[in-house]
Amino acid sequence: MQNNNAVIAAEAYNYPLLIKQLWSAPLVHSPNQEIVYRGNIRLSYSSVRSRVACLANVLSGAGVSMGDTVAVMDWDSHRYLESYYAVPMMGAVLQTVNIRLSPDQVLYTLNHAGPKVVLLNSEFLPLYLEIREQLTSVETVIWISDEAEAAPTSIPVLGSYETLLAEASADYDFPDFDENTRATTFYTTGTTGNPKGVYFSHRQLVLHSLATMAALGSSAKGQNFHTGDVYMPITPMFHVHAWGIPYVALMLGVKQVYPGRYQPDQLLKLIQDEGVTFSHCVPTILQMLLNTPGSDKVDLSEWKVVIGGSALSDGLARAAIKRGIDVFGGYGMSETCPLLSLAQLRPALGELSEDEQILYRCKAGTPVPLVDLRTVDHDMNDVPADGQTSGEVVVRTPWLTQGYFGNPEASDELWAGGYLHTQDIGISERGYLKITDRIKDVIKTGGEWVSSIEIEDLLSKHAGVIEAAVIGAKDEKWGERPVALVVANNDTPPSVAELKAHLQVFADEGQMSRYAVPDQILFIDSIDKTSVGKINKKVLREKYGN
Amino acid sequence: MQNNNAVIAAEAYNYPLLIKQLWSAPLVHSPNQEIVYRGNIRLSYSSVRSRVACLANVLSGAGVSMGDTVAVMDWDSHRYLESYYAVPMMGAVLQTVNIRLSPDQVLYTLNHAGPKVVLLNSEFLPLYLEIREQLTSVETVIWISDEAEAAPTSIPVLGSYETLLAEASADYDFPDFDENTRATTFYTTGTTGNPKGVYFSHRQLVLHSLATMAALGSSAKGQNFHTGDVYMPITPMFHVHAWGIPYVALMLGVKQVYPGRYQPDQLLKLIQDEGVTFSHCVPTILQMLLNTPGSDKVDLSEWKVVIGGSALSDGLARAAIKRGIDVFGGYGMSETCPLLSLAQLRPALGELSEDEQILYRCKAGTPVPLVDLRTVDHDMNDVPADGQTSGEVVVRTPWLTQGYFGNPEASDELWAGGYLHTQDIGISERGYLKITDRIKDVIKTGGEWVSSIEIEDLLSKHAGVIEAAVIGAKDEKWGERPVALVVANNDTPPSVAELKAHLQVFADEGQMSRYAVPDQILFIDSIDKTSVGKINKKVLREKYGN
Repeated sequence: MQNNNAVIAAEAYNYPLLIKQLWSAPLVHSPNQEIVYRGNIRLSYSSVRSRVACLANVLSGAGVSMGDTVAVMDWDSHRYLESYYAVPMMGAVLQTVNIRLSPDQVLYTLNHAGPKVVLLNSEFLPLYLEIREQLTSVETVIWISDEAEAAPTSIPVLGSYETLLAEASADYDFPDFDENTRATTFYTTGTTGNPKGVYFSHRQLVLHSLATMAALGSSAKGQNFHTGDVYMPITPMFHVHAWGIPYVALMLGVKQVYPGRYQPDQLLKLIQDEGVTFSHCVPTILQMLLNTPGSDKVDLSEWKVVIGGSALSDGLARAAIKRGIDVFGGYGMSETCPLLSLAQLRPALGELSEDEQILYRCKAGTPVPLVDLRTVDHDMNDVPADGQTSGEVVVRTPWLTQGYFGNPEASDELWAGGYLHTQDIGISERGYLKITDRIKDVIKTGGEWVSSIEIEDLLSKHAGVIEAAVIGAKDEKWGERPVALVVANNDTPPSVAELKAHLQVFADEGQMSRYAVPDQILFIDSIDKTSVGKINKKVLREKYGN
Repeated sequence: MQNNNAVIAAEAYNYPLLIKQLWSAPLVHSPNQEIVYRGNIRLSYSSVRSRVACLANVLSGAGVSMGDTVAVMDWDSHRYLESYYAVPMMGAVLQTVNIRLSPDQVLYTLNHAGPKVVLLNSEFLPLYLEIREQLTSVETVIWISDEAEAAPTSIPVLGSYETLLAEASADYDFPDFDENTRATTFYTTGTTGNPKGVYFSHRQLVLHSLATMAALGSSAKGQNFHTGDVYMPITPMFHVHAWGIPYVALMLGVKQVYPGRYQPDQLLKLIQDEGVTFSHCVPTILQMLLNTPGSDKVDLSEWKVVIGGSALSDGLARAAIKRGIDVFGGYGMSETCPLLSLAQLRPALGELSEDEQILYRCKAGTPVPLVDLRTVDHDMNDVPADGQTSGEVVVRTPWLTQGYFGNPEASDELWAGGYLHTQDIGISERGYLKITDRIKDVIKTGGEWVSSIEIEDLLSKHAGVIEAAVIGAKDEKWGERPVALVVANNDTPPSVAELKAHLQVFADEGQMSRYAVPDQILFIDSIDKTSVGKINKKVLREKYGN
């Protein structure tokens, strides 16, 4: 037998999966493609790549080396994008700071991650001044200002971003290193306790990018992302690397548009002026864009939008489709880098009516390549994929956080049994996963489990409902009872009786349990959200659950 | 600084890139999708997955374990496909035997790779009997026969494939192991010396599959492979894993059609009956299908075809496009797993006429994700991508053979300077690589380098030319002079003078060097090919080069 006779050439290149290599192909096929900031600044791919090298030289000059952390506090910008590459490519760790957290929490995450340098947008100076004296690791700040505002003297500033880049060399020999080197870190916005730090390696980000590109390109018709698209993220770049899609956009070689701070008018204008065809956002943002005055004058019929963070409701999906938007769900979370599944319409659904297909657009969808996704009972046995039986969604993929920073207990809980526990409850049918609830949000009433998301979805179908949230309120007799909180459409405000009757129809048809029709429906002005735009059920329960 | 404080949960799953995981998503979204053999046998994805487990149990029973080699000698079939999974997934090595080699060479490759078990199609029994006494490693044979032919008693046979599978358990717990474990091996069909063995690991095949899926899905319009397609390979499954596309087809969840032995009528019938929309082949096969009597009655207007192995000529591209075929080039080789680049029409080419775009379809194309492809001079410096300057194509990707089996010298030559040397000469422009020649096929005349492929391509544009090969013949004055060997179209046979005048036009226009117009043009009946369908210039030089 000669089969252990494999020769490895002395100089054979043992290719590590590193973020720098995402540039290899696009610099060849798309060096002149545009990266646009707010419609004002236009850079080519090759000049952004040069600026990435300049930024690395600036950071290097500031003492950043392998293993050090660099934090960014900015709106979505070309600069943020440059940090997505420069920091990890030099072997350092990028901390994307959630600037919507409270000052205390921002302080906590900065001191926990320990950045040496902070890239600070002038708009966050007040926040920064509030916490600066308690910062334990930051040595210097790189000052960012769209308005050419001078850097403050009250904090240690290395210089202004553009000035520093202009003075730096565009030569930087990004080294090879172990693909398991940490590339990024950020903090989840759990509603209990301190934010928890997750972290991702070069290998994980490269594999996530490849699998996401493969999945998004695979759809026969629509719900896809291809070389002819124009991309604009509307998920903050501090939030799970804007779902990793900027890395995919690079590999595709498409025009990329970064909108700065999210302002509905400005977002709609960019979609129109720049010809944006592919975005992703949470439901609230899409809702907001559709309801912005003048939105109906913008042609959205070429726009494809992945909805994540929370489920895409039936009502929102229909409103979007009416505008010509190719809207579909995606599923994942901070711990999962994030992508796990996409609700693209597979050809087998072609036998359904367009109306029935909308149901599938609203699901979590089918797993992307390499995702081993199971729905299990308490003993980790698979539950039947019968469209009826629910279980916890647990996953394995090559791009899951291996734990939480400095929190072994939560880490072990996350990975109990060798699968990452999403804490989401799901049901599968035709290969499509539907998330019916978070484990902690499920409502237990009279021994029955009721899905809050299902009731929200059915409420959203009513024309008088703009948005709905359902929580469990304590009940002496039943343990819990569902309470619906509704933001009404002021043009056609519904009554409580109307909404109950609306739900009763679904209960009579067997589409929802009779126990699930809420006794209480309250009209409120707005629904509390977390910093990343999800319904904040913890706050709602505190307000309305007792 | 707390940033080295990363916690890895005790049970966190450190996901290795293994071929078994290609099944995770498709078993969820496409369990009932079809895999078809010759239009007769239809299996679902989930039943093929069960049969993969059965095959692993059969092989295990035959004594195959981690690190052992299993050879396959079959036409393209569902059985071959099952071996693509079962053998590597159990940690063994799949040897795909090139059954078009001479018996001596088949013997050499079998003894060199050392398989314990051979899966043998009855059609190769005569070949097998010729070499069996000299086989040094084979312990038993699994007998394959479409015609239910009884297994011969003259060789040690474990049993018939279908009978063995029927008797085996469909439970096999495919283990996790190091992703760098070797998965496959096969032998290049170099025209000099013994065939050289290349080998690929699980990690390499998974990454190749992901990047290929990502690249093939990325095209805005046409030249793509998506969930709505029906796939049929027409590149032998013994040849570089049928370019790795069966693995991509699985991840997409598309219908797959395996045609058995390639018979033009049968291939056309399958395209028609099964609705095939995506294939790949060498130019000769496409040529043959277009020229098969009755081919014009088959609707090929939904068919997308990647051409590799040799360059797609302008003449063949036009003939295919006239039939409605979306034909485009791909580039790679045995050593590269194989895919390096694809000639998809990127949106930037939209400014060109359809006629000019055909030129780009005929190139090697733009690099796929993670491919670091350079065109270099003798000192490994990049040559300008100006559409003029040629250099050797050298590459780095995560899926390149790290050497040749038991051949350290050739291995070190392959990897000199840390890049894999393709031995192809290329020119780049607009990001598209064009291969102008193999280093050893380039013609040196009067101090000038002349590309044989370029002359072949220009000759192919003439309606009287079915196929052309150009070689260098020894010449006392000029060193070498190009000689053109032409297979003429008998309907409109051209004269030598006509073909010279045809080429002279391009020389006058500056599209080719005046030195490149061959002095001699010979009409021959057929052009010698290698076992994988490439023009065999070594044989042609021996016949016509002196």
